[in-house]
Amino acid sequence: MTDAGIETGFTTAFGLRHPVALAPMAGAAGGRLAAAVAQAGGLGLLGGGYGEADWIAREWALAEGAGARIGIGFITWRLTPSLLAQCLDRAPRAVMLSFGDPAPFAPAIHAAGVPLICQCQTVAHARAALEAGAQILVAQGAEAGGHGATRGTMTLVPELADLIAARAPQTILLAAGGIADGRSLAASLMLGADGALIGSRFWAASEALVPQGFHAAACASDGDATLRSSVPDAVRGLDWPAPFTIRTMRSAFSDRWQSDPQALRAPEAGPIRTAWSNAQAAGDARNGTPVVGEAVGLIQQIAPAAEILTRMTADALSRLQSFSAPKYPGGAGAGPRRDLGQDPIPSEI
Amino acid sequence: MTDAGIETGFTTAFGLRHPVALAPMAGAAGGRLAAAVAQAGGLGLLGGGYGEADWIAREWALAEGAGARIGIGFITWRLTPSLLAQCLDRAPRAVMLSFGDPAPFAPAIHAAGVPLICQCQTVAHARAALEAGAQILVAQGAEAGGHGATRGTMTLVPELADLIAARAPQTILLAAGGIADGRSLAASLMLGADGALIGSRFWAASEALVPQGFHAAACASDGDATLRSSVPDAVRGLDWPAPFTIRTMRSAFSDRWQSDPQALRAPEAGPIRTAWSNAQAAGDARNGTPVVGEAVGLIQQIAPAAEILTRMTADALSRLQSFSAPKYPGGAGAGPRRDLGQDPIPSEI
Repeated sequence: MTDAGIETGFTTAFGLRHPVALAPMAGAAGGRLAAAVAQAGGLGLLGGGYGEADWIAREWALAEGAGARIGIGFITWRLTPSLLAQCLDRAPRAVMLSFGDPAPFAPAIHAAGVPLICQCQTVAHARAALEAGAQILVAQGAEAGGHGATRGTMTLVPELADLIAARAPQTILLAAGGIADGRSLAASLMLGADGALIGSRFWAASEALVPQGFHAAACASDGDATLRSSVPDAVRGLDWPAPFTIRTMRSAFSDRWQSDPQALRAPEAGPIRTAWSNAQAAGDARNGTPVVGEAVGLIQQIAPAAEILTRMTADALSRLQSFSAPKYPGGAGAGPRRDLGQDPIPSEI
Repeated sequence: MTDAGIETGFTTAFGLRHPVALAPMAGAAGGRLAAAVAQAGGLGLLGGGYGEADWIAREWALAEGAGARIGIGFITWRLTPSLLAQCLDRAPRAVMLSFGDPAPFAPAIHAAGVPLICQCQTVAHARAALEAGAQILVAQGAEAGGHGATRGTMTLVPELADLIAARAPQTILLAAGGIADGRSLAASLMLGADGALIGSRFWAASEALVPQGFHAAACASDGDATLRSSVPDAVRGLDWPAPFTIRTMRSAFSDRWQSDPQALRAPEAGPIRTAWSNAQAAGDARNGTPVVGEAVGLIQQIAPAAEILTRMTADALSRLQSFSAPKYPGGAGAGPRRDLGQDPIPSEI
């Protein structure tokens, strides 16, 4: 293939062809997906999730078996020093920490010489990540699927870029939340990011560990079809700390429990919890809660990760380069414009 | 001044120098601000707010007195046919409808030959706006200050661009929510918009009808300082329809009432309501709720609207044109990068 990549501080630091990292989605970002992203020239991160060591070992072996060097991401408040040590022994390409204070784990990661990526949902999180010596910050907006908080990508990315410029200008910044095609990748770079961390679009890759029924439901949905809630955490008995909620597709199940998620934790709700687990495993989008973000409205088909990545970068590059002339060739539809009968304003002000 | 504008379908249709419209912020976007934006080459929209005809007449006269031709925006669920008719008689440059079904008002606007702008918070809203024959859609993300809903700018803009391309490609698309500088304006264009509708950054203009104390509080805050709630609606006794909430700065007042806003509607809460009103008028950010969006974290100083507009477009253009070469010159800090000790991946995949 031709080298149609985009070069940024992120691609240079990691030797990548595309300024894109795979979001380490718990359950969905397994060894095959992480390997596919890595081999296509992105940064592949395994979804370390809730810290199931057996799952991690199996999926990591799949990636290594495919000849790929990958990194791993953890849910910080579920991480243990021993699991981290096991993973550092595998010489990961990077370790990403999200959802919790990185300070207790940062020293071991630095000592192993492994780049530390900290995902941040607020400016306060970003300050803590810089204190912990993170080399890469991810500004994750509320559009994202899975766990996150309330700030939007459009403001969090430039604000963290300003923070980095003032405090630690060598830090790399990735945008996350709602980035699913060349348009949003290009927008991320304009906002001051060095690349993007991408979940939903790779959740809809053929290598993702996602049931077919969920993929089909996602392809048929628009972006209004998701919501943030604590229903999927309550039904699993997980005690996520504030301020984090989880974005999933709305479903009959979420509609039923949205107003009273804590009822799902009651002893007598056992059969309901079992039914939800079965729906999740079977890909039953009506009785489960598929974990995907607002970008679901930009996803019409399942494709191999390499194809997604190549098209995304090529589209971003083409869009960015179209602006080398001051006249922008086309926005929304780029169709013929209606004549709105307006006289140009006088040239003097 | 030199013509350093950006040309898009939006600027062409309205004869603008900048692809920017002033958000018709209730209370804050008065005649002086609308005139300043219009005369600097943007689209100035008066904040028609809750439909106070006297306020509108007075502020419109200010703009006309300054020699500016402006448009107006309304809160659709508060608009009446008679107020609309009065405003159409003034030959507005455009009419913008937000927060409610535009269908009952669209025919009169079309009959007057006035461009109709519909602000949309969901894909469903956008479908209704196209049905109503809107010539301009605004995709408003949850980052925005004031009323809005939950979808983020980063996904809503490209999704509405796709809808427009499929159904009515001559429609103009503006991005709104979190757009406050050249970076986010450039990002909006990359996402497929023809320009941006900007609130918070103009709320912090010297011509805005905003008390000095609120401006000072905003300049001192980061973007974590806002929240969406119904507190400011409850304290005013306003019955906003679903799905709309209002984003303001957090304050001692919002912290106190966030968990039980409806208590503010009780008869015995009269003195509390009065104290809030007084705080709003006095610019007391601690006891009031300044209406501004997440972009507050990108605002460090109050400036004249013309200066804001000129700098925003110049910065956007410079950022966009920096990408005419495939190597991107710098993201976040654009400082020297740490060596993360990574070997480039093999060139074959």
